[in-house]
Amino acid sequence: MHWKTLLRLLSIVTAILSFCLFVIAGFSFFEHEPLSVTKSLLVPALLGIIFFIIMWILVRKERQKMLLTNREGFLFVSLSWLTASLLSAIPFTLSGYIPSYVDAVFETVSGFTTTGASILTNIEALPRSLLLWRATTHWLGGMGIVVLTVAIFPLLGFGGLRLMEADAPGPSVDRITPRIASTAKIFWFIYLGLTVAETLLLVFGGMTLYDAICHSFATLATGGFSTKNLSVGYFNSAYIDVVITVFMFLAGANFTLHFRFLSGKIKTVLKDAEFRAYFLIFAISSLIIAIDLSIHHVFPGFFNSLRFAGFQSSSILTTTGFATADFSLWPYASQIVLLFLMFIGGCAGSTGGGIKVIRIIILAKMAFTEMRYLTNPKGVYSIFVNNKPIRKNVVYDTAAFVFLYLVIMIISFVVVGIGGYDITTSITATLATLGNIGPGFGLVGPALNYAFFPDWIKLWLAFIMLVGRLEVYTVLILFTRRFWHS
Amino acid sequence: MHWKTLLRLLSIVTAILSFCLFVIAGFSFFEHEPLSVTKSLLVPALLGIIFFIIMWILVRKERQKMLLTNREGFLFVSLSWLTASLLSAIPFTLSGYIPSYVDAVFETVSGFTTTGASILTNIEALPRSLLLWRATTHWLGGMGIVVLTVAIFPLLGFGGLRLMEADAPGPSVDRITPRIASTAKIFWFIYLGLTVAETLLLVFGGMTLYDAICHSFATLATGGFSTKNLSVGYFNSAYIDVVITVFMFLAGANFTLHFRFLSGKIKTVLKDAEFRAYFLIFAISSLIIAIDLSIHHVFPGFFNSLRFAGFQSSSILTTTGFATADFSLWPYASQIVLLFLMFIGGCAGSTGGGIKVIRIIILAKMAFTEMRYLTNPKGVYSIFVNNKPIRKNVVYDTAAFVFLYLVIMIISFVVVGIGGYDITTSITATLATLGNIGPGFGLVGPALNYAFFPDWIKLWLAFIMLVGRLEVYTVLILFTRRFWHS
Repeated sequence: MHWKTLLRLLSIVTAILSFCLFVIAGFSFFEHEPLSVTKSLLVPALLGIIFFIIMWILVRKERQKMLLTNREGFLFVSLSWLTASLLSAIPFTLSGYIPSYVDAVFETVSGFTTTGASILTNIEALPRSLLLWRATTHWLGGMGIVVLTVAIFPLLGFGGLRLMEADAPGPSVDRITPRIASTAKIFWFIYLGLTVAETLLLVFGGMTLYDAICHSFATLATGGFSTKNLSVGYFNSAYIDVVITVFMFLAGANFTLHFRFLSGKIKTVLKDAEFRAYFLIFAISSLIIAIDLSIHHVFPGFFNSLRFAGFQSSSILTTTGFATADFSLWPYASQIVLLFLMFIGGCAGSTGGGIKVIRIIILAKMAFTEMRYLTNPKGVYSIFVNNKPIRKNVVYDTAAFVFLYLVIMIISFVVVGIGGYDITTSITATLATLGNIGPGFGLVGPALNYAFFPDWIKLWLAFIMLVGRLEVYTVLILFTRRFWHS
Repeated sequence: MHWKTLLRLLSIVTAILSFCLFVIAGFSFFEHEPLSVTKSLLVPALLGIIFFIIMWILVRKERQKMLLTNREGFLFVSLSWLTASLLSAIPFTLSGYIPSYVDAVFETVSGFTTTGASILTNIEALPRSLLLWRATTHWLGGMGIVVLTVAIFPLLGFGGLRLMEADAPGPSVDRITPRIASTAKIFWFIYLGLTVAETLLLVFGGMTLYDAICHSFATLATGGFSTKNLSVGYFNSAYIDVVITVFMFLAGANFTLHFRFLSGKIKTVLKDAEFRAYFLIFAISSLIIAIDLSIHHVFPGFFNSLRFAGFQSSSILTTTGFATADFSLWPYASQIVLLFLMFIGGCAGSTGGGIKVIRIIILAKMAFTEMRYLTNPKGVYSIFVNNKPIRKNVVYDTAAFVFLYLVIMIISFVVVGIGGYDITTSITATLATLGNIGPGFGLVGPALNYAFFPDWIKLWLAFIMLVGRLEVYTVLILFTRRFWHS
């Protein structure tokens, strides 16, 4: 283990955080917020920059050969998310707005993992700078602090591809350019472009620039932190609902497809198996819920029903977690469809969490192939996605992943249940954190929050947010003996 | 498709049912039950025997070459369970005790699949003969009508092994003797022996012979139908609770191990990976629940808590579904542990349902191997169970099975939810039927029943009981186009 290299790379992560914290401290100063708030932002900013400078001096010699092995890559990814969360939680506690540091860590882990689960009972009581910082954790986490690092410091070489695979998007990164750093940069520009586009559209719809930026950060990261207690429901505008529904959907789609789309290869996008499935799941769910809501007269008229159904479906499927209605009060059929979406998640190569659509496609084809094999044991069958054969090892990996994901899910039901919470709460709090969604049903419904859990459950849920965000293996591998002794 | 051979084999199944129905009709007659009840048992008995005779005459010539292809094997297994259920439902409706034929079919499917979910609101209102018939469906279904057929008519040859694999026990039948029919016979004798042993022990504990037989039938089949509204709780006896706890546990263990145990190879049994895991899951769950019940003073004293915890854990883990307490009123931690057990099920080669312990072991090892591979991609790793390497194809099959199982589960959540039932009810009604358990939580708790569901949900749940009992593929394969066109 090359600890020096690791720490040096970590210091780059803290430097980026410091930069953002300085900017937000400046915002706090110009907003004439209490000095204690501005100071609380400056403290971690200085800590981060001091760490960066120390590592810069110490690891001068080794800077030439900063390549990571697989093991170091896994460790680096987990450590950078942990460090970022621990550092970024400081302003909330120091300013006194989230007195418990455990709560503050829960909130920032929720931010960086783009979960959006909150322990805040009154979001609007926080100063604007802290809410902006909260939204920024989403945005930074969304595309992955690590991808950002890769894009800015292309010195990681082969390690970079490993990191992309470990950190960012789903089972495989479809390399659109031969150099990994270029790919990361392109992803990042698309991300930035979509954020700017949504911000402008929201301002056009009557939001303040501040609210528009915060909500765009949370949308593109499929995070879900809002600046309002009522979430997006506060704005009560069909236009804003539609804009956010569309951008959540885009953020949950594979960024490689956005690149293809921008390059004019529209047909490739429309023929993509994952995108088609993703769109169909969204459309059918929205329609079922809209019909159910219409039948039960929850909203006046079918189009209103469709607006709310579409927003909530997009929000849950992409694992964003915004809400324009308290869906835990909706008729049961609608609730169950949303619960169903909680098991799926976004596309590979997106900022969305969950199991991801492509994995479900691969496993469905695997099961189907198995049935063909049973009727004709002499046949040799391959699994094709987008007319390309999928190597047996990839299918194998996918199955192992989904199994492990479900095992962690079931263990987490039990852990939360041991705390004395009902079945619906235990199950959906798990789904909502492991899948990086945010709100669930029962005591963690969209109108409620995670404040009431005891510290040990908050820490557990923060842990599984990380497990979910870092694609399970990246975190769990650190707990195997073999990892440290080989 | 050799339809004549298929129908001929089916007629053997109906003949066995007819034989049992005649015996029970005799019982009804000697009990001086109303003639309408006795008649209702004789009608399907005669139908079954007439069908047998017709097929005997028609398929005289082909009797020499009655070998089944894979496809015919699958079709035969599904058809025999369906035919048995449709035929055996007749007495309940004809006698007027279950007026709706859909309800009666639900009840018998639940019987033959050893689920034990009931639509009866007052079990004790039924005549003794009908309750005995209800218990008999469990017993016949338990070891598999098909295995029975194989044991009595060893003319199926190679087809027999297929059937054993398709029908009875888990991922692989460990052949203990070279000839499949002998194996089936040995299994059947162990099954019979355990039933007799339990009956004697229960009579010794003060049960009437009638109740003892009915409960032994339901225990060994891991079914769960009782003759009492309060299930086993009615007898309120620590001795009876312990006897049934032990026999449920034995019924959920691999019958190959019973054979080994009886042959004196006790060490092999104790070293078996699946048996160890099965025992540990049972012991740890019982202990956690016992502690939780003690803390909340649900029962007086720790040993009482352990008695009830052990019974309910054994009942849910083995997918029996007997109850001595209404566990849906227990503290949440205990509920969640039981919910956790609902995901597991018994061992391969047992009468238990669910995913089965061995599959979970294989997948856990698969996930673990995957992590080793990630730290050292050049390594070649194999999965070992009981010091034997597991072929990659078997692991692959297992993964596909579990995935398909979970997909059906999630689809079923949605189907039941569409009917307008809450999350807990939708989830646990699914788990309890797909896993062949019986009771769940919410509206399908152990003190309640399935009567309130509309017919279409009852039929859906009956369908997934069959899917669960016949190891998913056997049923689902019939719905693929390829099955019929190749």
